[in-house]
Amino acid sequence: MTAPAYDDNNIFAKILRGELPCEKVFEDDATLVIMDIMPRGDGHCLVLPKAPSRNILDVEPDSLAAVALTTQRMARAVREAFGADGVTVQQFNESAGGQIVFHLHVHVIPRFDGVALKPHTGTMEDSAVLKANAEKIRAALNG
Amino acid sequence: MTAPAYDDNNIFAKILRGELPCEKVFEDDATLVIMDIMPRGDGHCLVLPKAPSRNILDVEPDSLAAVALTTQRMARAVREAFGADGVTVQQFNESAGGQIVFHLHVHVIPRFDGVALKPHTGTMEDSAVLKANAEKIRAALNG
Repeated sequence: MTAPAYDDNNIFAKILRGELPCEKVFEDDATLVIMDIMPRGDGHCLVLPKAPSRNILDVEPDSLAAVALTTQRMARAVREAFGADGVTVQQFNESAGGQIVFHLHVHVIPRFDGVALKPHTGTMEDSAVLKANAEKIRAALNG
Repeated sequence: MTAPAYDDNNIFAKILRGELPCEKVFEDDATLVIMDIMPRGDGHCLVLPKAPSRNILDVEPDSLAAVALTTQRMARAVREAFGADGVTVQQFNESAGGQIVFHLHVHVIPRFDGVALKPHTGTMEDSAVLKANAEKIRAALNG
């Protein structure tokens, strides 16, 4: 099986090129973290490699390792920022695997005892809420 | 917030010490891959670091990077082994995050168009089925 080619016009590619806005949480040489605009819980953010890759099936090892380390950094930060009881990490590959945007990304979702993940409703979160949650995470990263 | 300490008596620690059986799929210096005995889909396997860590919050960076690379290897292998349309990767931290066994592990689940994940029923898969599925994955790894 050959994986489909990377499509340079996916929305995360556009965000990485600065052609679309995002609520940026963190950035280093190899990764970018942004808020998920349709969060399944408060503080739900996404870790992206800067290098183009469709998903885990085609990503370069260095890029994947950088994503993993940034994912850890974000898991710790969201737990601190929101006083979360746990963190759920998800990464979807191809449509059957749950992937919607075809640039590799890892979901990092703060979790709380007794609170289920919100369903995917397709409803966009208010940008002021995203901004406030991003600020909490940035503060935890810098604290 | 301080993370709880690693409990050396969790079942994955016992598997790593050879005190409990498992259906082994892959092993290298830093990681072990075993079949999930309560699979949410055929071919559902688990990537574990050999070094003790409770979850992503406390794992050492080298161990985490090794887990990420083995996860990629397994994602490719299960897609090949089962002709899967996609792969879902999940990693749960603390009970609120979905974690049940407190040794870091990454779920790698082959996915098929139109087929939902099976619910967590707590029912153990027949060991012959696990063995047959593991053999398919091992063949893909060696192919």
